[in-house]
Amino acid sequence: MRANRRHPGAGSRQSAQPRPADYRRLRNPFTPQRVFSDDAVAAMHESALKINETLGIKVLLPEARDLYREAGALVDEDTQMVRIGGEIIAQALESCPRSFRGFGADPQRTVEFAPGTLVFVGGSSCPNVSDLERGRRPGALADYIELLKISQRFDVLQISGNYTEAQDVPVHLRHYAMLRAQLTLSDKMPFVHSRGREQVRDAFAMIRLARGLGEQEFRQAVYAHTMINSNSPRVLDHSMAQGLIDFARHGQMAIVTPFCLAGAMAPITIAGALTLQHAEALAGITLAQLARPGAPVLYGSFLSNVDMRSGSPAFGTPTHMQATLGAGQLARLIGLPWRAGAGTAANVVDAQAAWETQFSLWASVLAGATVCIHAAGWMEGGLTHSYEKLMIDVEVLQMVAELCVAPPADEDALGFEAVATVPPGGHFFSAAHTMARYRTAFYEPLIADTANFGAWQEAGGRTATQRACEKWKQTLSDYTPPPGAAACGEALEEFIARRTEEGGAPPLT
Amino acid sequence: MRANRRHPGAGSRQSAQPRPADYRRLRNPFTPQRVFSDDAVAAMHESALKINETLGIKVLLPEARDLYREAGALVDEDTQMVRIGGEIIAQALESCPRSFRGFGADPQRTVEFAPGTLVFVGGSSCPNVSDLERGRRPGALADYIELLKISQRFDVLQISGNYTEAQDVPVHLRHYAMLRAQLTLSDKMPFVHSRGREQVRDAFAMIRLARGLGEQEFRQAVYAHTMINSNSPRVLDHSMAQGLIDFARHGQMAIVTPFCLAGAMAPITIAGALTLQHAEALAGITLAQLARPGAPVLYGSFLSNVDMRSGSPAFGTPTHMQATLGAGQLARLIGLPWRAGAGTAANVVDAQAAWETQFSLWASVLAGATVCIHAAGWMEGGLTHSYEKLMIDVEVLQMVAELCVAPPADEDALGFEAVATVPPGGHFFSAAHTMARYRTAFYEPLIADTANFGAWQEAGGRTATQRACEKWKQTLSDYTPPPGAAACGEALEEFIARRTEEGGAPPLT
Repeated sequence: MRANRRHPGAGSRQSAQPRPADYRRLRNPFTPQRVFSDDAVAAMHESALKINETLGIKVLLPEARDLYREAGALVDEDTQMVRIGGEIIAQALESCPRSFRGFGADPQRTVEFAPGTLVFVGGSSCPNVSDLERGRRPGALADYIELLKISQRFDVLQISGNYTEAQDVPVHLRHYAMLRAQLTLSDKMPFVHSRGREQVRDAFAMIRLARGLGEQEFRQAVYAHTMINSNSPRVLDHSMAQGLIDFARHGQMAIVTPFCLAGAMAPITIAGALTLQHAEALAGITLAQLARPGAPVLYGSFLSNVDMRSGSPAFGTPTHMQATLGAGQLARLIGLPWRAGAGTAANVVDAQAAWETQFSLWASVLAGATVCIHAAGWMEGGLTHSYEKLMIDVEVLQMVAELCVAPPADEDALGFEAVATVPPGGHFFSAAHTMARYRTAFYEPLIADTANFGAWQEAGGRTATQRACEKWKQTLSDYTPPPGAAACGEALEEFIARRTEEGGAPPLT
Repeated sequence: MRANRRHPGAGSRQSAQPRPADYRRLRNPFTPQRVFSDDAVAAMHESALKINETLGIKVLLPEARDLYREAGALVDEDTQMVRIGGEIIAQALESCPRSFRGFGADPQRTVEFAPGTLVFVGGSSCPNVSDLERGRRPGALADYIELLKISQRFDVLQISGNYTEAQDVPVHLRHYAMLRAQLTLSDKMPFVHSRGREQVRDAFAMIRLARGLGEQEFRQAVYAHTMINSNSPRVLDHSMAQGLIDFARHGQMAIVTPFCLAGAMAPITIAGALTLQHAEALAGITLAQLARPGAPVLYGSFLSNVDMRSGSPAFGTPTHMQATLGAGQLARLIGLPWRAGAGTAANVVDAQAAWETQFSLWASVLAGATVCIHAAGWMEGGLTHSYEKLMIDVEVLQMVAELCVAPPADEDALGFEAVATVPPGGHFFSAAHTMARYRTAFYEPLIADTANFGAWQEAGGRTATQRACEKWKQTLSDYTPPPGAAACGEALEEFIARRTEEGGAPPLT
């Protein structure tokens, strides 16, 4: 079965034509799948509107309550509860853009956010990092920079994630260091934390400096993205509300994702948890549209379940998948581009890490999510970003990207002549039809090893995780900064020096 | 984020209601996905007919050539080439049943084979077995029996596979030992090798004895299945042709799967390899229908690619997935239930083993395959059946099975009242809505561990593969034979003793 025939000339891959898939611009090839009836989806939407209208959401930021009140919502200043009528939400949904583009330093990094596009983002905001050589440790700036450099290498991670927290940098200065790294070491669209107006203002200033944009120019297109998580159930805190307002006013992209776990911060039923999540997402999206109609937002879902024995979050479960498919139905009902997420609760880069991540990745792809966050490296339910898992997940994302190109089916591809030239019981290894294509016919894996057992054992018998370790080290040592990225370094240094002098910007909590 | 709250009363799972999914009877919840246009699929079908009509297939068995000739095919006895006209194939496809049932010892094990049903079969015909405690070794009868017992425990593996070869039993007696084990230790529909008329006749006699069936009764329903692989390109050998004829004449199920690898035994293009595979499958299915119109057959695909650097087979690749999706389109064109397969080339039960298996499993599910073979335990491209991988794959299959049940979306499930009772920032752990459901709300994993890092490390820091090892040992020690299975043992012993006395039945090669 396992042939050992080596293809003549197969050693010289350097002359290979690139595979046809353009990992920077993917369109989802799958038909979005349903898990609920259309009636059930409509009922969830109605119930979410009823939650916002009759129960309301607690909004901690006075400025946000003002915006809601001015739009006609009922605001109780004592309880901070805001009750938002369905017509206010309907109007907000009207003004949301259905598609828009996001820009990095290189025009080649321009990403389209629209129903049907497919964007992957690395695992984000993990407090710890881990690799086979140095072990598990709290994330520091050096780790963040390494993960940024490795991720920069892979086009399939189309925009920057917030891989880990640079916890060795004081919080009032951290955003300078992390954003400087993004702007000088990567040409992808950067991530910016919403940790208060002052930090966001700093970040936008740095991006304008790096991209050479004036204030007006900056507001007219998307150059940065942020993550807005409501505190489920039904709380929108200060920094999140302020982030929504500030990103909207500056025309930058906010991804509005309640962080719900069925059975913990949300009802235990998928339909119930989705309804609560939908209510909170609608409330957040509405705030952005009230701050600036037309502000670019993504609807967000990252709904999974808790393990009812331990109360621990679980990811890549059947519930996670069904919830994601249902979220996709709700996103299509309101017609917005949206995000889902991949992930695992595994504590080591083993088979569980792989199957849970794939399960949730397939959920995201089959649900038609525009953006899949935490798509690489994220493990322990988000507590750790693993260098080896990053590489393994990139392999799988590249495999998904390959599926975005339909295989040729012209007459030559059908290969009747090739079949006619190979006798019964023969082989196609040296057929002209094969020779003309073998260099680029198949995806060439990063990590996967197809050697037979003996050869594999002789080569050291290493697991995929051990091979991934070698691969990230090689990727890191091969790193070269994208052309022009360093050019903005001086202007940024100057800005950061001045702001540091002024005391930096403590986060709003 | 990671809660440590333990659910009150969560220790006592024994009173849990079963989850609603019936793993024995699954319907695929997904819409079959396409990778080719309808025109391209029609062109592949036409090209396959042209291959059969003008190039032909080499058929080694004279009896099979006679059947083809009698139906009007052009047969060259010197070259053994058979050219089959399109109308002969069309007529054969007319007589194929679109759906049928297969029977085990227990009526609860009845399986429906029809477009839209979902049947999983364990990894089959691996020459080696492997487990963490005893290592990798050639498969022996004791291993086969252990894998059979472990697989019997899991309803999601609905019919028996041919887990490994009992290589310590002489080939003329091996089929007695392996089938006796299936019939006395399992109540699932057994697998029978097509290794010549004599062995097949023995096997059918044993099944009739075990099931208490007369010859006529036996022919009227499906009590066994076999695997028919053509030798790609374009050879149907003695034992496969004879198996097709004998299974058809006895009304038993043959799965007709050319074993093609794009770039090796088939054209390097997916469209070309599918066309060759389709041609060979149609030729085999036609032979079965010529032997007995209405014979139960499954159309089969197990098309992947070779690694062009080493010539080794690769599984769970993008090519494997696209080929499987295309095969599903061809199967739907001819309207037959069909099989695909999951698999991996990995040599160890690591992340690669998991991601490749999932990739090919999802291919099978999304392609709408009726039966997914090699769905558990199969690794090294089929050279080894791993005990630990068996358990890990069963976990994932159970997760897929859970997706076959739509989550509730009635008013109570929408949970408005539950949301109303939990204050903003509160939690749902002790809500009545949660308490009423927490025991059965979520799939309870076999192997997956959601403990946080500290707890996981304290408990030994074991990988999923290590936990799977413990789990198969426990499953094996918990094994009890299905009720009534042993009852047929005596009659089988008598039969086997007599046939052994007569010299057994050497395989036809």
